[in-house]
Amino acid sequence: MVQKFGGTSVADCARIEHVADLVCKARRAGDDLVVVVSAMAGETDRLLGLGKSICQRPSLREMDVLLSSGEQVSMALLAIALEKRGQAARSFTGAQVCIRTDRDHGKARIEAIEEGKLRAALADHCVPVVAGFQGVNADGDITTLGRGGSDTTAVALAAALKADECRIYTDVDGVYTTDPRMVPEARRLARITFDEMLELSGQGSKVLQVRAVEFAGKYNVPLRVLSTFKQGQGTLITYEDDVMEAPVVSAIAFNRDEAEITLIGVPDQPGAAFQVLGPVSEAGIVVDMIVQNVARDGRLDFTFTLHRNDYSQAMEILQANLKNSGAQRLVGNDRVVKISLVGVGMRSHSGVATRMFQTLAGQGINIRLVATSEIKISVVVDEKHLEAGVRALHAAFGLHQPQPRNQAAGKGGRAG
Amino acid sequence: MVQKFGGTSVADCARIEHVADLVCKARRAGDDLVVVVSAMAGETDRLLGLGKSICQRPSLREMDVLLSSGEQVSMALLAIALEKRGQAARSFTGAQVCIRTDRDHGKARIEAIEEGKLRAALADHCVPVVAGFQGVNADGDITTLGRGGSDTTAVALAAALKADECRIYTDVDGVYTTDPRMVPEARRLARITFDEMLELSGQGSKVLQVRAVEFAGKYNVPLRVLSTFKQGQGTLITYEDDVMEAPVVSAIAFNRDEAEITLIGVPDQPGAAFQVLGPVSEAGIVVDMIVQNVARDGRLDFTFTLHRNDYSQAMEILQANLKNSGAQRLVGNDRVVKISLVGVGMRSHSGVATRMFQTLAGQGINIRLVATSEIKISVVVDEKHLEAGVRALHAAFGLHQPQPRNQAAGKGGRAG
Repeated sequence: MVQKFGGTSVADCARIEHVADLVCKARRAGDDLVVVVSAMAGETDRLLGLGKSICQRPSLREMDVLLSSGEQVSMALLAIALEKRGQAARSFTGAQVCIRTDRDHGKARIEAIEEGKLRAALADHCVPVVAGFQGVNADGDITTLGRGGSDTTAVALAAALKADECRIYTDVDGVYTTDPRMVPEARRLARITFDEMLELSGQGSKVLQVRAVEFAGKYNVPLRVLSTFKQGQGTLITYEDDVMEAPVVSAIAFNRDEAEITLIGVPDQPGAAFQVLGPVSEAGIVVDMIVQNVARDGRLDFTFTLHRNDYSQAMEILQANLKNSGAQRLVGNDRVVKISLVGVGMRSHSGVATRMFQTLAGQGINIRLVATSEIKISVVVDEKHLEAGVRALHAAFGLHQPQPRNQAAGKGGRAG
Repeated sequence: MVQKFGGTSVADCARIEHVADLVCKARRAGDDLVVVVSAMAGETDRLLGLGKSICQRPSLREMDVLLSSGEQVSMALLAIALEKRGQAARSFTGAQVCIRTDRDHGKARIEAIEEGKLRAALADHCVPVVAGFQGVNADGDITTLGRGGSDTTAVALAAALKADECRIYTDVDGVYTTDPRMVPEARRLARITFDEMLELSGQGSKVLQVRAVEFAGKYNVPLRVLSTFKQGQGTLITYEDDVMEAPVVSAIAFNRDEAEITLIGVPDQPGAAFQVLGPVSEAGIVVDMIVQNVARDGRLDFTFTLHRNDYSQAMEILQANLKNSGAQRLVGNDRVVKISLVGVGMRSHSGVATRMFQTLAGQGINIRLVATSEIKISVVVDEKHLEAGVRALHAAFGLHQPQPRNQAAGKGGRAG
């Protein structure tokens, strides 16, 4: 089994000792374990702050060197705490266990993992404690996987070692129908599919990193999200099970930090979309939703959403490329949010969109953009409508009540 | 040239920016530079504290992982500060530039350095910023060189790269005739020999690490100690120059943290000293002075000094081995200090010891132990006599006044 402990789980020495207890308990239960840790909570931000205080746009290579020191501290401390308990342990940086990545500093992707050192440690009855979030590229330079990358490290290790389960310990006790801080009636889901989780992760549900879920789905690594501080089964993320009676909507995700940009009057010709987005993605800006409607009079409006932090940079780039793109005008809004309904049951049920639009209209909420996927509908609305919208939808889709597959002994359901 | 900046020189972002200015200035002067940095002041102690708060005797392997994260932070920050100034830079951990050491965690010794990455960076007009204090052993495990090990890293790099000078930037502006905090009349030395410096480093003068000086002497790397914060020439440490008119005594060192242990009535037979010290050195305890006088009635008294921190452990070990060693009794004192006179001129001058003993007697100071080397005389006295002893000796050997080789334009002297 692979256990991963996030930053809040290793925030100080007392918590690290608690994590060591959890690890020892799992070892006594007979499991071969590999542990992955994040940096102590706040440490990555502290380091980021140091770097930014020297230079607003520091070298990405050097930021990776800087940030990766955070996990080095927590992994050593956890190894020390384990050895204190008589449990042999050995900590490893990403470079030491050869978590090979590409060269994309700050958001590198894992390409390969050499299992040798880990297998050797396990053979010695040692618990390997591996730094999450970091790897090493072909030049031997330290890379990082981007925020939340420790989850990806854990899943990648679980896949490489063919672990039976990858447990992500965090400060929440599972995946909820929506954020309980916004909707007190929100409930914990006992199970959820990779696809649903993927849509939730991508939509701003901060429990797991998207790439980690992708990875887990791709290599069929059962993932379990559970709390470091509270006993419980958490939420198991697996492939869809035919026995499951899938609810139409499993959960509602939302994202506060959205911005939208529209290019008005782009000539309707092949390559138009590329002309618009090319320079933006070259700058490394991640574009989320893309909406383009049918052209009128040979021109079309092209809208996309992106993270609010990238908004001004993207606007600058597009302004500079306005002539090239052939667009007439550029408008943007960085005070918008996105609300998404997610559920594998959506596939076989029509009318979800209708009920969603009706519910929002009932609250007087104007919908700015709509995008859909197989198991998701997302709308962009003004940020002032976020809370009312999420609450109304949570009630309208019956998420206040337990649903079959999430009941421990519900009719047609499964134990979590 | 190799430049090394200690912890106080990189204590915060403002100081790191100042260091970046110094590095850029040297680069503009046309020097090819390799920079070595320590952890930010206080960081190593903070990390040590974290480790110790979990376990009083943490695994040495894991402590090295923990502590070595400190330099990783400062090296990245300095590289960022250099790049902000338009100076290409690239930071490297000890492992990345293959500073190969033995397996002795916590006080590893450098065995080899691969110059490849450094030469490549220099060829790219980059300033390599290398983590001091750390290396990597043959298993790929992180090692550290012990306190002050960054000096050793700098000298080892200077030797490997055949640098013309290794500059150790620190918070003092050079080597003094004695600690100016104790003797206000103490003066900065413009030059000093490796041998003298070695004796001073070993005797508790905290300016440079002993191993760094040994290394520098062995590979004939001219070392210069100078201040990060105050302009000046510092103190140059080189081989003895025949032109130099060597003073009889160059400097006075002292060590506050001494303890002495005596085994009384050890049988006077071959192997006696080994019987006594074997178990102590096996425990990794460093023994400093060893004094043994002529035997009387087939028995002798065997005394040695050691760091005060190791005192209780050594006493325990010796007590447990008392029968084996054949000694009659064990006595110890951990409230003693050592005062040493150092000077290459001592070789050709008799009477230094006499004047030393006379001076101390004049202050009513009782001498407990005496040991001598070619260019040094050390005495152990009660700790209450430290200050009066050092002051009296500083005056008695004329160290208040500038001496020929340390005057910028003195008769027979050399410019510093």
